[in-house]
Amino acid sequence: MKKTMVELRVRYAETDQMGVAHHSSYFPWMEAARTELMRDLGMSYRELEDRGFYLPVREAFCRYMRSLRYDDIAVIEAEVLQMSGASLKIGYRIREKESGKPVAEGYTLHPFVDSYGKVVRMPDFLRRLFDSAEL
Amino acid sequence: MKKTMVELRVRYAETDQMGVAHHSSYFPWMEAARTELMRDLGMSYRELEDRGFYLPVREAFCRYMRSLRYDDIAVIEAEVLQMSGASLKIGYRIREKESGKPVAEGYTLHPFVDSYGKVVRMPDFLRRLFDSAEL
Amino acid sequence: MKKTMVELRVRYAETDQMGVAHHSSYFPWMEAARTELMRDLGMSYRELEDRGFYLPVREAFCRYMRSLRYDDIAVIEAEVLQMSGASLKIGYRIREKESGKPVAEGYTLHPFVDSYGKVVRMPDFLRRLFDSAEL
Amino acid sequence: MKKTMVELRVRYAETDQMGVAHHSSYFPWMEAARTELMRDLGMSYRELEDRGFYLPVREAFCRYMRSLRYDDIAVIEAEVLQMSGASLKIGYRIREKESGKPVAEGYTLHPFVDSYGKVVRMPDFLRRLFDSAEL
Repeated sequence: MKKTMVELRVRYAETDQMGVAHHSSYFPWMEAARTELMRDLGMSYRELEDRGFYLPVREAFCRYMRSLRYDDIAVIEAEVLQMSGASLKIGYRIREKESGKPVAEGYTLHPFVDSYGKVVRMPDFLRRLFDSAEL
Repeated sequence: MKKTMVELRVRYAETDQMGVAHHSSYFPWMEAARTELMRDLGMSYRELEDRGFYLPVREAFCRYMRSLRYDDIAVIEAEVLQMSGASLKIGYRIREKESGKPVAEGYTLHPFVDSYGKVVRMPDFLRRLFDSAEL
Repeated sequence: MKKTMVELRVRYAETDQMGVAHHSSYFPWMEAARTELMRDLGMSYRELEDRGFYLPVREAFCRYMRSLRYDDIAVIEAEVLQMSGASLKIGYRIREKESGKPVAEGYTLHPFVDSYGKVVRMPDFLRRLFDSAEL
Repeated sequence: MKKTMVELRVRYAETDQMGVAHHSSYFPWMEAARTELMRDLGMSYRELEDRGFYLPVREAFCRYMRSLRYDDIAVIEAEVLQMSGASLKIGYRIREKESGKPVAEGYTLHPFVDSYGKVVRMPDFLRRLFDSAEL
């Protein structure tokens, strides 16, 4: 399974008054990892949208095991967990870089949608890309 | 079961280039509803923290059924789904105010944590509050 | 001068590890007040965009005098400071509701832009609205 | 003058329905560049806070010349513009990496504050650091 790794430094703006990264911050991080995963698979998400296809989020889940502090580096690993004609499930593991300790894990589920907002089957060019990436 | 309702107007900053509220925006909305739920139960979350107890997020989940647009009013309903000595599970339903249509649903799971970050049992004053609220 | 007031409760997600609302949070609040100001003037910003006109931000400024804490209610006052054929300057005053104390003040400057991203003169229907509002 | 450069890829979550990075996103970017500037000067902002000093934001300003799109790489350059016993002014220039075109510029103004929230003079260890960095 192809995995993509992204490193992001926790921003001050992402902390809350508990002194740790706010739980909602993790979803944009997962999204950033998803962006790189797509690029690694051979088509940037920007290009996908330019071709008229979108991957809105149908479900988002995160389990938090440890917290991250300002200036920590989060390593976010993303991989395709499941792929059907109708949707794509992507999994994430987040760890703190220095200690290597697991911080959080989660997934997002995405239907394929066209530019009219209609749910469609996965476009062929994407399926070919995914197949050649041996997902 | 006590339910608390909060209305929030979707901010421009909360939209993304798909033209709808970004999925990560829903978590701060749930949190805002959680804040009001606590207040309705008889103790504001601010007061709880002042007493040295915290409710960090252990799990967060959201399922998105429809999208919300800028300037739409989101109605977020929060209720206690489960309460044990060790954790609190809160459920949310979000609908678009004008149409009344369901937009999303989710939950968050919270351990009780003291000011040292240690997981503790639910404080008695909170249990009494919750009991008298007939949750 | 017409002034519009909006009340927003500070969200936990908007705080940072200093224990106060993060300075970047104030800009979406100003934007929320701007949204209501436009509505008060007779045309919602959503409708303006539907007609093919946009008010991107050219300049944004905020001076912070006091801080706001989680669960505080911010009162944001917005008014048109300057209006020319080419741009609109909107001013903001933010105070904490309970104490009434001033918290911040700022402004944003907006050109008029059409759906091609081209800067245009203020559309006539908007000028008429603004004139009748005795700005 | 010492300058620090940071590269950040525009996140999907940072876009708005105009299809570009939302103006409020620029302030956390400046903050990320400020974090690296401090580190370059010899003391991370995290360490500064650990020593009981804070640099809250007194003023924040940004002028937007062009827009950034999702997946663009923003290059943020930060430098100390002014330094007095009482405050620090930091300037920023943001450009789009591929084209090199200027996108925005701005500044933030910061008093020195101790852990009681009291404004204090710049601590000596910081002044020495700044002096040796030939600001």
